[in-house]
Amino acid sequence: MSEQKFKGIIAYPITPFHPVEGGIDVGMLSQSIERLVGSGVHAIAPLGSTGESAYLSDDEWDRAAEASIKQVARRVPVVVGISDLTTRNAIRRAKFAEAQGADAVMVLPISYWKLSEQEIFEHYAAIGKAVGIPIMVYNNPATSGIDMSPLLISRLVKEIDAVTMVKESTGDIQRMHKLHQLSNGEIPFYNGSNPLALEAFVAGAAGWCTAAPNLIPTLTIDLYNAVATGELDRARRLFYRQLPVLEFILKGGLPTTIKAGLQLDGLDVGIPRAPLAPLAQEEREMLTKLLQEARR
Amino acid sequence: MSEQKFKGIIAYPITPFHPVEGGIDVGMLSQSIERLVGSGVHAIAPLGSTGESAYLSDDEWDRAAEASIKQVARRVPVVVGISDLTTRNAIRRAKFAEAQGADAVMVLPISYWKLSEQEIFEHYAAIGKAVGIPIMVYNNPATSGIDMSPLLISRLVKEIDAVTMVKESTGDIQRMHKLHQLSNGEIPFYNGSNPLALEAFVAGAAGWCTAAPNLIPTLTIDLYNAVATGELDRARRLFYRQLPVLEFILKGGLPTTIKAGLQLDGLDVGIPRAPLAPLAQEEREMLTKLLQEARR
Amino acid sequence: MSEQKFKGIIAYPITPFHPVEGGIDVGMLSQSIERLVGSGVHAIAPLGSTGESAYLSDDEWDRAAEASIKQVARRVPVVVGISDLTTRNAIRRAKFAEAQGADAVMVLPISYWKLSEQEIFEHYAAIGKAVGIPIMVYNNPATSGIDMSPLLISRLVKEIDAVTMVKESTGDIQRMHKLHQLSNGEIPFYNGSNPLALEAFVAGAAGWCTAAPNLIPTLTIDLYNAVATGELDRARRLFYRQLPVLEFILKGGLPTTIKAGLQLDGLDVGIPRAPLAPLAQEEREMLTKLLQEARR
Amino acid sequence: MSEQKFKGIIAYPITPFHPVEGGIDVGMLSQSIERLVGSGVHAIAPLGSTGESAYLSDDEWDRAAEASIKQVARRVPVVVGISDLTTRNAIRRAKFAEAQGADAVMVLPISYWKLSEQEIFEHYAAIGKAVGIPIMVYNNPATSGIDMSPLLISRLVKEIDAVTMVKESTGDIQRMHKLHQLSNGEIPFYNGSNPLALEAFVAGAAGWCTAAPNLIPTLTIDLYNAVATGELDRARRLFYRQLPVLEFILKGGLPTTIKAGLQLDGLDVGIPRAPLAPLAQEEREMLTKLLQEARR
Repeated sequence: MSEQKFKGIIAYPITPFHPVEGGIDVGMLSQSIERLVGSGVHAIAPLGSTGESAYLSDDEWDRAAEASIKQVARRVPVVVGISDLTTRNAIRRAKFAEAQGADAVMVLPISYWKLSEQEIFEHYAAIGKAVGIPIMVYNNPATSGIDMSPLLISRLVKEIDAVTMVKESTGDIQRMHKLHQLSNGEIPFYNGSNPLALEAFVAGAAGWCTAAPNLIPTLTIDLYNAVATGELDRARRLFYRQLPVLEFILKGGLPTTIKAGLQLDGLDVGIPRAPLAPLAQEEREMLTKLLQEARR
Repeated sequence: MSEQKFKGIIAYPITPFHPVEGGIDVGMLSQSIERLVGSGVHAIAPLGSTGESAYLSDDEWDRAAEASIKQVARRVPVVVGISDLTTRNAIRRAKFAEAQGADAVMVLPISYWKLSEQEIFEHYAAIGKAVGIPIMVYNNPATSGIDMSPLLISRLVKEIDAVTMVKESTGDIQRMHKLHQLSNGEIPFYNGSNPLALEAFVAGAAGWCTAAPNLIPTLTIDLYNAVATGELDRARRLFYRQLPVLEFILKGGLPTTIKAGLQLDGLDVGIPRAPLAPLAQEEREMLTKLLQEARR
Repeated sequence: MSEQKFKGIIAYPITPFHPVEGGIDVGMLSQSIERLVGSGVHAIAPLGSTGESAYLSDDEWDRAAEASIKQVARRVPVVVGISDLTTRNAIRRAKFAEAQGADAVMVLPISYWKLSEQEIFEHYAAIGKAVGIPIMVYNNPATSGIDMSPLLISRLVKEIDAVTMVKESTGDIQRMHKLHQLSNGEIPFYNGSNPLALEAFVAGAAGWCTAAPNLIPTLTIDLYNAVATGELDRARRLFYRQLPVLEFILKGGLPTTIKAGLQLDGLDVGIPRAPLAPLAQEEREMLTKLLQEARR
Repeated sequence: MSEQKFKGIIAYPITPFHPVEGGIDVGMLSQSIERLVGSGVHAIAPLGSTGESAYLSDDEWDRAAEASIKQVARRVPVVVGISDLTTRNAIRRAKFAEAQGADAVMVLPISYWKLSEQEIFEHYAAIGKAVGIPIMVYNNPATSGIDMSPLLISRLVKEIDAVTMVKESTGDIQRMHKLHQLSNGEIPFYNGSNPLALEAFVAGAAGWCTAAPNLIPTLTIDLYNAVATGELDRARRLFYRQLPVLEFILKGGLPTTIKAGLQLDGLDVGIPRAPLAPLAQEEREMLTKLLQEARR
């Protein structure tokens, strides 16, 4: 695990839209990514759930991928999120990301009709065959409707060369234990569940994929460092201090809450795309309060 | 309920793809719709789950909608399925369907980020404002990731003029009881769960939205008629006779199993779009057997 | 199914306790059973969930069983509920019920530690070996913590001679379909879920096991008769008329709500045993209103 | 938390039965408790789930409580498990345990009929009023059928004087986070989910209630010490080393697997009470192998 390119805090940018015409605001996108890179996070993961990639047209998606990779400019690694209902468009996007200079792709299979394990396998195998960069398997049943067992995930890693990393977002620590056991600790796994940040690192996670650095970058980085240096009491204190923010952004929906939080910080990133609604006034006040307490 | 335009058996067509280039096979689409209309079903519902609408590009979707409505040619009513993650594209599609001559649209909200009840309401309200044809609320958490309570659904019907019908696909008969109670029996509800066909009619459903007529049209129509004329024993026998087929097509995924069944009947409609896989050989044999037993 | 001893409305009595000393009030128990028999129900099922059998000591249980069977005095069949965590005490109770003259026992396996299918099988086999009267398998995971699949249930019926009937209380109509399919309609099944009363009869249930006859006996019997004579519209009207009462007694807990309802009718049957609390005043008023509307 | 009487490894004994007459084997019970105390665990918790207390008659329960407390002889603290469907018998048992010298009682409310939050509160309040020793609230929906939210639990601690500790066995680490947040870290909580042992300590658990010390006492105590001294890498290694045993005993049922394991170690503690079956031969071999690997 020590040679992993991706480790530590892997941050998700949001995707800002123009208030009037509704298209992607590339200038603001670059600005918000610059802010993340400057905060010291260890990698950037554009076009994930937080980036509303599911709500973008193909053209928009391409523009966002291109602009994000260009802005990071190889200062930290970039893993681009790929989630599309059809295998052919997932391949198209993965190849586009690779061509733009992505270091890896994070592939989330999406369900309308439930997929069999073999259908999921073929989906990953087809993408793996099409690209020359590593693939991170991404399991997030809450958004994708597909739940991949640790056994299936370890099979993907073992049988498809391009698949080398796993992101687990179920929030179930036992899934991480099982991935550890199934690979004798060899499969690098990443935590995608914010309220599990402390325990996932303790269980051996190589990194934490999170939108929280948009609002509280230092706390997330400090937590990672405290566990890495074995300062358990400090890690616990840091975790409980940021937990209310982590729970709030998860519960309110990441695009909704992170965009609201960035605006509270003076970055005018607009609102999420309908049917997603902007954060209600009462909840903006709650977020203001939670951020003050965490940052104090 | 007696004046409803939509009642009885509302049939879903599949969407055939060209075996080589992969695009929509409009000729075969028209042929499969003609077969359904000719079988005596009471309405046609193109671009539903069975029609793989979630796996189509916008251009493909438009072509399929246009061709389907044209083929039906007003011989029976047409309700076009609208399911898109963004409100603006859902509106675009609904308006397109109306312009092509659809009698109604069946709107399924789709989740990536979970939607609040108010976000769902605004989604329907925006579509209702944009079109002049009736909207059928469609609840199907298994595919859409969104579960609308009977209370929310009845609010949609009461507060949005265009929303006049409800399709319930949870398979939970209590949802239908609740819709009945919340509206004193006034909201017309349609059953979208095949294995609930008998009981939903008994509980008062105005219709059954189903892909089964592609394979066993007479049995589905006979069941509807038997309940309508109060022949309960006959209805029960008809139901248990077709139940193995209904369970099989549901479990195997409707596009997968219906396309396989149509090919068994000599209609070369191809296979579903990847990552969906065609029906395995062993299951094709099972389907052959089940169809023989049901049709005997 | 036509030769079944048990069919139609199978009514559960409550178990009244003395207000002061807390023991069983046998006089009131007999009175409440007499009321049920007099109302015209087709069978009596003492010491079920409604009878708080889980909250009785062994001595109390024996007294209640004896008094109940004696009061019915063979005017209608009696099926006595047997639910005990240990096999040996379940056998003891079943033998006691048989000795007192029970026509059958209704056996609910109970979970503290989850039971394997084989452990459940052995439990039934041991009881079946010990008694000479028929056993009704009772599946009710909500109270017992054990969910028996239709496949396991049909195995119990096929392989254990004494097991001849099934009571399904999951409220899932598909379970009943499956029991029908697994036995070619030969296994007599009974519905134990009040809000499924109409559809279970339509699907072929031989009877409805219910506490509702304590409060609305005529409506339950009329519903059974309407389905039996194929009067579907009448059956649907009768069902929707009593549904609010059925939902209320289920949601509030049967011992709690039925005892409150009997007291509203002038029968002083006391309150359930702690930790179960009596029905709150606000809910008693709701029940009064619901009963008035159903009985109007 | 530092002044807690109960901390570290709190071990559950099993309850051995005579092979022939079936009653409690008090000599063997004492011997197995002596083995636990001698292994260095920090406290003993008789008559928990592992002790099959749910399957004992009142007389048997009393004998087991008396013998267990006597055998420990105040060398370590004793917390006696109290789980009874009725409040009055729960009180009787709690008072008996106190009279015999128990240091605390661990109270698990049990469901047949679901309890409201107020009914659960009254159950605890009544027991709290009856005894003079501290009460540990025990939440274990998998066995008890009742799931108490962190909010309800914190209310029990705040409003009932005798309630001072919490045992959480859902295996959901977020429950522990919430208990921490609701009490500013003041409520001592104990982990009852074996596969969560590492993370629960990291999240701040005061102790781990477990049957594992019957088989691998040193590993459990070492894990506790490693976390306490901040040796995170060592703790992780110790955890993953014992995890296969922890998962096995949980999945197979604690009385079943622990009794089998003790017999493998030469202690003839018999088998669990029917309907629970003894561990199958194949699984005994698996357990032998897992124990060898953990102890190597």
